[in-house]
Amino acid sequence: MKAPENVYSQHHLFLSTQEREKGIGQRGKVVWLYGLSGAGKTTIGAGLERSLFEKGRQVVVLDGDNLRTGLNADLGFSDDDRRENVRRVAEVARVLSSQGAIVIVAVITPSNKLRDLARGIVGEQFLGVFVKASLEACQARDPKGLYAKVTDGKIRNFTGKDSGFELPSAPDLVIDTETLSIEEAVMVVFRELQKS
Amino acid sequence: MKAPENVYSQHHLFLSTQEREKGIGQRGKVVWLYGLSGAGKTTIGAGLERSLFEKGRQVVVLDGDNLRTGLNADLGFSDDDRRENVRRVAEVARVLSSQGAIVIVAVITPSNKLRDLARGIVGEQFLGVFVKASLEACQARDPKGLYAKVTDGKIRNFTGKDSGFELPSAPDLVIDTETLSIEEAVMVVFRELQKS
Repeated sequence: MKAPENVYSQHHLFLSTQEREKGIGQRGKVVWLYGLSGAGKTTIGAGLERSLFEKGRQVVVLDGDNLRTGLNADLGFSDDDRRENVRRVAEVARVLSSQGAIVIVAVITPSNKLRDLARGIVGEQFLGVFVKASLEACQARDPKGLYAKVTDGKIRNFTGKDSGFELPSAPDLVIDTETLSIEEAVMVVFRELQKS
Repeated sequence: MKAPENVYSQHHLFLSTQEREKGIGQRGKVVWLYGLSGAGKTTIGAGLERSLFEKGRQVVVLDGDNLRTGLNADLGFSDDDRRENVRRVAEVARVLSSQGAIVIVAVITPSNKLRDLARGIVGEQFLGVFVKASLEACQARDPKGLYAKVTDGKIRNFTGKDSGFELPSAPDLVIDTETLSIEEAVMVVFRELQKS
């Protein structure tokens, strides 16, 4: 039987945020972890992912480092490229959180302007988490050996060294990884998520 | 108590695809719906989303039209921009399917080269679905009034009119929306998904 032409021309809508959140039993959210390289963004992100996943939550990770080899492979570390990097990640996070997912983002996001850009794109589902550690602590940890490469002159425009990192003026949440253990840090963010 | 410096410098990994797929109870997949404007990509995508969601699957929608106002708002309809559009959507789809999600993509993807690009980025989780309808049928449906605007000269580089649409050389699946009802079309894709 031939399908009537008009059926495919009607409005067929994707599920709404409300339908999805009701069905999944959670609210969409974007946890935007920002801070210096080595501050602990990925560590906390991974711990948070695991905690949420084990409780049956739908959780997605957008890790800045991983995206740099894929979605943002065409971008460098100039101001314009950092901005475009943040814009794209925020746009993807917005799409996913509007479909009910809890999205964990880990991106340096070195300036208040960039944090505002991300928040503006995502909207009210945005939770900005400043993952705080001194430059000295980050250099001592140097999990990816990047600070050593900067010292050796092999990397330029590295945030905290020859490229600036602006302290947040009004962070939603601050996680000091020089005083909190990983488990404590994850728990603080987890509890904050339960409030919303 | 002060956290030991070295804890945050260890490798803390995000969940693997295997851990996620096991926990969620499904395999990650990218259903890439391509075809002319008006062929029924969004209609089938919406029906498929609802079917999967109602069965408790984790499903994400990446709709080309919606992304054009967000992630891909900086892109037009030149060959280069269409390529970048497909590349970005495929990169996002790859990230999500590697986290166990079933990703439904609806993008015109007018050439075999672009379909190969998407498949190459996503990898083996890719299922290309050609949503087939004649240009005449699409024009008669014209769900967004776009064909009328082309005729009026208000849109240029419109696929199927002044910009080419290449028939797929080796589609994974063909859905002929001139012969199948929406329910039938959705069921065919749904069954194909269950095979993998």
